[in-house]
Amino acid sequence: MRTLIIVAHPELASSGTQQFLRRGAELVAADWQPLSTDFNVATEQVKLRAAERIIWQFPLYWYSAPAILKAWQDQVLTSKFVLHEQGLAGKELGIVVTTDTKASDYQSGAAEQFTLAELLRPYQALANKAGLHWLPPFVINQFRYQTESQQQALLIAYQQYLTLPQPATFTQRQHWFAQQLQQMITNATGERKTQLVLVEQQLAAKQDELEELRWTIEQMRGDD
Amino acid sequence: MRTLIIVAHPELASSGTQQFLRRGAELVAADWQPLSTDFNVATEQVKLRAAERIIWQFPLYWYSAPAILKAWQDQVLTSKFVLHEQGLAGKELGIVVTTDTKASDYQSGAAEQFTLAELLRPYQALANKAGLHWLPPFVINQFRYQTESQQQALLIAYQQYLTLPQPATFTQRQHWFAQQLQQMITNATGERKTQLVLVEQQLAAKQDELEELRWTIEQMRGDD
Repeated sequence: MRTLIIVAHPELASSGTQQFLRRGAELVAADWQPLSTDFNVATEQVKLRAAERIIWQFPLYWYSAPAILKAWQDQVLTSKFVLHEQGLAGKELGIVVTTDTKASDYQSGAAEQFTLAELLRPYQALANKAGLHWLPPFVINQFRYQTESQQQALLIAYQQYLTLPQPATFTQRQHWFAQQLQQMITNATGERKTQLVLVEQQLAAKQDELEELRWTIEQMRGDD
Repeated sequence: MRTLIIVAHPELASSGTQQFLRRGAELVAADWQPLSTDFNVATEQVKLRAAERIIWQFPLYWYSAPAILKAWQDQVLTSKFVLHEQGLAGKELGIVVTTDTKASDYQSGAAEQFTLAELLRPYQALANKAGLHWLPPFVINQFRYQTESQQQALLIAYQQYLTLPQPATFTQRQHWFAQQLQQMITNATGERKTQLVLVEQQLAAKQDELEELRWTIEQMRGDD
């Protein structure tokens, strides 16, 4: 999966959230592309053509992306490229959006009145017009209030969002995790390697248990 | 009514639609403010404070305003100004949006999949947050395919959108038109004045007829 992440943040260097996500993106070899105001339209179109999954990643400013992304869209996504040449057709479009607001505020009757699904309609309409397959947006609410373990879980979910079929099934996510663990074991040494192998064995044992339970359920159903 | 029209169009001088609307705005003494990339945040905030009705006027580029308006929003509409000082609270926000697409394309199942009401949600959410009263958007579809008389009717509707309570009642729109006509008669001379007075008499006659019919209906209802 060739994933291109277009990061639109006016103060990227000082954003803890973005720097945190960046490490996650690098671990799964996604193409991390911060947007600046001087881009070359032809170069951008070449990068888009090479990608299979395109991600627009940004903090929500007044209910949409910072102006820097709109300027890029207005200039790079020409009618010729998008409509006549169908330069984006068949690819996937994902949105990674960070907000300082709690999730429950985005609903009718709450502080923000609208859901994020409604607020992101302009991007969905663009995907529709361009023949892009629209992925369920990946929303990060109030990152800085999350505990360290919540943030680690978020990082894994983010890496899966960049690389797995979306929406991913439980089995796909489990398989992905097993692969990542295998790679960590390969790269680890000494005591850390021993620990990771123990984790792997525990997971394998749980997996056996799960399959046994599934088999039992099937047998019971067969008896009916 | 002090109406401030913020016009966001990257090629304003070459837009026939915008030049046409400009004449209409001038006739009702609305404040026509084209956006350029170099604006002063403090000056913009002073203009916003002085306005009673704020209009964002733009062509739809990828389902929202051109980047120039987003840049202005991101910089001028600071948390301090909008949330802490409540600099926009109690004012009205109107959207004048032009599109090259026919109106019927904006619905579920049609080419654009979403209604303009859905696509404009980010602006409505902003209005909600800022304490602005959200007016029904004024949508201009395919201006260049309209006949001259359609365009003239549009211009009157636009002038009413800038100045009348929204949504305006039939009586309010009629009263507005009578006032405009009175002013035209005052400024006219010679044969043109004669013609306009004839129009005024025709309208007055129709008005009498209308009132007579309304009275008849009331009488009939009273008989039940």
